[in-house]
Amino acid sequence: MKHSHHSNARSLVILPLGLLLGLLLGLLMTRAHATPPLDHVEPPSWWVGMKERHLQLMLHGPGIAEMQASIQHPGVRLLGSQRGDSPNYLFLTLEISKKARPGQMDIVLSAKGKPLLRQPYRLQAREPGSAERRGFDSGDAIYLVVPDRFANGEPANDTLPDLGDAADRKQPGGRHGGDLRGIEQHLDYIAGMGFTQLWATPVLENRQPAHSYHGYSITDLYRVDPRLGSLDDYLRLSQRARALGVGLIQDIVPNHIGSGHWWMADLPTRDWIHPAQPYRETNHRHGTVQDPYASQADTRAFLDGWFVPTMPDLNQGQPLLARYLIQNAIWWIETAGLSGLRVDTYPYSDKRFLSDWTRAILAEYPRFSLVGEEMSDKALMVAYWLRGQQAPDGYRGSMPSMMDFPLHGRLREALIEPDGGGFGQGLGKLYEAMMDDRLYPEPDRMVLFGGNHDTNRIFSALGQDPALMRMAAAVIATTRRTPQFFYGTELLMTSPIERDDGAVRADFPGGWAGDAVNGFSGQGLSSEQAGFQDFLRHLLNWRKHSPAIHQGRLLHFNPQDGCYVYFRIAPEQTLMVVLNKNNIAKHLDSRRFAEALPAGSQGIDIISGAQQRLDELIEVPARAVLMIEIKPR
Amino acid sequence: MKHSHHSNARSLVILPLGLLLGLLLGLLMTRAHATPPLDHVEPPSWWVGMKERHLQLMLHGPGIAEMQASIQHPGVRLLGSQRGDSPNYLFLTLEISKKARPGQMDIVLSAKGKPLLRQPYRLQAREPGSAERRGFDSGDAIYLVVPDRFANGEPANDTLPDLGDAADRKQPGGRHGGDLRGIEQHLDYIAGMGFTQLWATPVLENRQPAHSYHGYSITDLYRVDPRLGSLDDYLRLSQRARALGVGLIQDIVPNHIGSGHWWMADLPTRDWIHPAQPYRETNHRHGTVQDPYASQADTRAFLDGWFVPTMPDLNQGQPLLARYLIQNAIWWIETAGLSGLRVDTYPYSDKRFLSDWTRAILAEYPRFSLVGEEMSDKALMVAYWLRGQQAPDGYRGSMPSMMDFPLHGRLREALIEPDGGGFGQGLGKLYEAMMDDRLYPEPDRMVLFGGNHDTNRIFSALGQDPALMRMAAAVIATTRRTPQFFYGTELLMTSPIERDDGAVRADFPGGWAGDAVNGFSGQGLSSEQAGFQDFLRHLLNWRKHSPAIHQGRLLHFNPQDGCYVYFRIAPEQTLMVVLNKNNIAKHLDSRRFAEALPAGSQGIDIISGAQQRLDELIEVPARAVLMIEIKPR
Repeated sequence: MKHSHHSNARSLVILPLGLLLGLLLGLLMTRAHATPPLDHVEPPSWWVGMKERHLQLMLHGPGIAEMQASIQHPGVRLLGSQRGDSPNYLFLTLEISKKARPGQMDIVLSAKGKPLLRQPYRLQAREPGSAERRGFDSGDAIYLVVPDRFANGEPANDTLPDLGDAADRKQPGGRHGGDLRGIEQHLDYIAGMGFTQLWATPVLENRQPAHSYHGYSITDLYRVDPRLGSLDDYLRLSQRARALGVGLIQDIVPNHIGSGHWWMADLPTRDWIHPAQPYRETNHRHGTVQDPYASQADTRAFLDGWFVPTMPDLNQGQPLLARYLIQNAIWWIETAGLSGLRVDTYPYSDKRFLSDWTRAILAEYPRFSLVGEEMSDKALMVAYWLRGQQAPDGYRGSMPSMMDFPLHGRLREALIEPDGGGFGQGLGKLYEAMMDDRLYPEPDRMVLFGGNHDTNRIFSALGQDPALMRMAAAVIATTRRTPQFFYGTELLMTSPIERDDGAVRADFPGGWAGDAVNGFSGQGLSSEQAGFQDFLRHLLNWRKHSPAIHQGRLLHFNPQDGCYVYFRIAPEQTLMVVLNKNNIAKHLDSRRFAEALPAGSQGIDIISGAQQRLDELIEVPARAVLMIEIKPR
Repeated sequence: MKHSHHSNARSLVILPLGLLLGLLLGLLMTRAHATPPLDHVEPPSWWVGMKERHLQLMLHGPGIAEMQASIQHPGVRLLGSQRGDSPNYLFLTLEISKKARPGQMDIVLSAKGKPLLRQPYRLQAREPGSAERRGFDSGDAIYLVVPDRFANGEPANDTLPDLGDAADRKQPGGRHGGDLRGIEQHLDYIAGMGFTQLWATPVLENRQPAHSYHGYSITDLYRVDPRLGSLDDYLRLSQRARALGVGLIQDIVPNHIGSGHWWMADLPTRDWIHPAQPYRETNHRHGTVQDPYASQADTRAFLDGWFVPTMPDLNQGQPLLARYLIQNAIWWIETAGLSGLRVDTYPYSDKRFLSDWTRAILAEYPRFSLVGEEMSDKALMVAYWLRGQQAPDGYRGSMPSMMDFPLHGRLREALIEPDGGGFGQGLGKLYEAMMDDRLYPEPDRMVLFGGNHDTNRIFSALGQDPALMRMAAAVIATTRRTPQFFYGTELLMTSPIERDDGAVRADFPGGWAGDAVNGFSGQGLSSEQAGFQDFLRHLLNWRKHSPAIHQGRLLHFNPQDGCYVYFRIAPEQTLMVVLNKNNIAKHLDSRRFAEALPAGSQGIDIISGAQQRLDELIEVPARAVLMIEIKPR
């Protein structure tokens, strides 16, 4: 996919300059070196042939709110203009017909009938098939990286004085220098592991004095952070990943911006962000926006409070901002050839906006994928946001998928807790949790993970037990879900149990020159690490082409005696998964599974490739997970 | 309401006896002292004017399956007859038109065209308004008693050798002698406490050698256990309770019978009960009947396994049995003037049957109430059974109400757990649990309880803390639920924490002659006991007439600083409830509650009657619950 640079908002053609400044300052004067009067035009480019023909342009420059705009371009009509509370913003609404001619058009800004500025604007042709792009689904496996912590492909950009927060690898909460080129250099590794989607935490500019590495304090919604690379780097990463069969998922943050965002010096409208004075932190009560009994006081405190003082809370109830955010998402999808969006802090945004936002995106890209973050343990609370249903309060969720925090939690508990403690303990917890799937209209699309950048490392949570890790990975990769693995999970990376973001997001070994251990090449890995990496590689590569995984129904058996057995059953293939948490081998009577195992069934262990007999007693080694592929006879 | 005795199935008119026996034995002979050939006719009576015009009669007697039946009665038609596998049962299907004449009719049984038996059968007129009877709802408060353990009104019936299991008050699991007359003698106490519904654990015959006191091993579905009293005693209890404003809820057990049931010696059909040999206990996996992924093997093990060896598991998939059970429930409702049914071990029965059963009952009594027992902690699992919704598997629940085990659990945890441990800890657990109400089509009908005959005593669970008890009672009685209290809760009765049925169901003090303490009169109660009894009496009597409780919407505030505040808001009245779990008094800023408390609001403490100012700071004493009634200004 070819991508053109977006037009630079600062490349502005200045018309009768003295007149303009005279108007702005209220007096006539000349200046030798005038600064360009427009600072931003956003979105910086658009396309002909979008389903939504309206486009809202945000123009930002001194005194621009008082000017009149006009556009002369075939197929483009200026429907209206609107100012905010600041004198320095003008919002234009354009209609771009299907017949509009791609190419440059001019926006002319006038005062008192006299043209003062001519702003070029690029209308692009869409890539063929862009609207029909396929998102990710349960046939995919997602690799999550924190770009600053994965691999440092370009040490020259580690510290850029203009942006602050100089790199310092010794600081757990500092920048470590990882970048887009580092990811690009290891795409073969990622694809080779069997991953088919790459989710990077946000790559946009974070001009913040500290803690800018995680990317969630975005200060320019149209700019890749230069310490990670350029827009070109990002587009090249996307293209090369795609060439290897790996889609790109962008992490998007509609809830807040970084306090260093240029808006903060000159807010478009007074209600652009929720009040900064007095500073109020969100109460984090996600439930208030779903609870039929919640008070308005609590609900507003949740929605309008800030996440932290460095993250101004956007007011998506502001219609100009809402439109801005919708277009911003679409701009990145179209520009960077994305296959999906991961939506940060989902419930913290205005819920009507969230529906509008998602529906607008899915109207443009009906087969696209979005996955939201509702960091709640309760399936009911997560399900609220999903499309295909209506809550009793009348709210219709819009999301195809959410991060599966509830099953994530139950899976960890199921593996750690001893079995035999009664119903619903140990593996029974996992068995019972699956029942909540009836809350999800599309369970296969739910994204299941062992850990992510906001949890502790699953290997640590499982007591650094490689046997439990294999069971966790097996469940994540074979149950009715879209699996996601956090970078380094394959290397059994550890972390403190108590939340410690900097430690959880430790550097991937081998991503920095001079690293003694190299996870990419395998050099210096312990046999335990290499063994697990290999196990996961086999598993993910097998599942890529498995009809049982892609379309198979799930059938499971009540855990007994520390063993949990389930099947994925497709017409062409059945997968049998057996978890044995016991310290001794178990022999399972195959007759119990007769409804999934026709008499005389045989299979192949998908990891070892060994033949496995499935009649009479099935031997399951101690603390093992068996995954047996069964062909119909 | 007048109730006539039902006809005794044994009062059979014997026709040409020799002919009958000759037919049965295949040879002609005479006998001097013939036993009556019919042992049971069930239901033993029926009514004219039921919505369902069909009636299925079960006739039981030696060799009756081979006979032909005929009925000559105005408005009654015999539509068909059917035998089972036993030669000793005949099932008749009658149509009783609206024009049928109430009174006795005869069922004539013939062999080879010759009438052999004439069985009288009573068709009764219905009480006026029977179909329109009102069940219980959130305006009610339910008192649960175990009749054997509440009060011994008639010591003469404590032990009846014919039935076994002689009374022995020293045995926790033995019969203690309580009976229906004992309850009747204390109806004034129950009504005086403010209760408006009485739920007694099953009162039907339990002819079992041991553990017969709890009543759940029913051996005759049409007979009151003589150790509790006669049918007359039961009907008089119902009438007198009703006269005091107390409805009667019968505990009904469609899932199983007692092993001493007369069916067990001669099953009507081979599939009447689930297999007894080999004995298989249910796996108790309630979820299997709801889980989209459950195996048939697990589901059948849950449904078809027995509860215990002394409780044969009925196969409600047997259509003759299904009809029998539907009619049995209706017979008791109509005969005993019931206001509700509590349905035991709800999920263990065939779920199609359960819908048919409930719908048949509600078709006859549209305003009647039923509450089912789904002993699960998961709201989703409980909600599955409720009417007014459809599960993704297509199942449509039928129940107006279920026992609220999930909120019961969360309430206990909310009170025991320290606050301040993070979101969703302590009172936050209660706050978050209320959110699950959106799973319930009619939350007000859900029956909330602190404890029952199958849990430990809530006073013990709350660490014998009277302050926490007042909070628990306040929540149970004022949130959006139908409250239920277990007998003796008002006296702070205790129990071991680990399940111990006999101890939980200890005798109510004062129910037996010679009891040193008398909960009815108050004699010998500690001041703590008397104080709590008085608190509950005030609370329940106040709520009887409270529009805020009966129709008020619920509005609650995220617990802060160990205090949870909620309101019930009706046009005529607002109730403010404040729980303070701290060991010190708290002063709450009333402005936070402005959406429920207009400026300058004043109220009255519903327990003390004292005026309470509600502007500025509201003082809440340490470890107290405040319930303030606020009239609109």
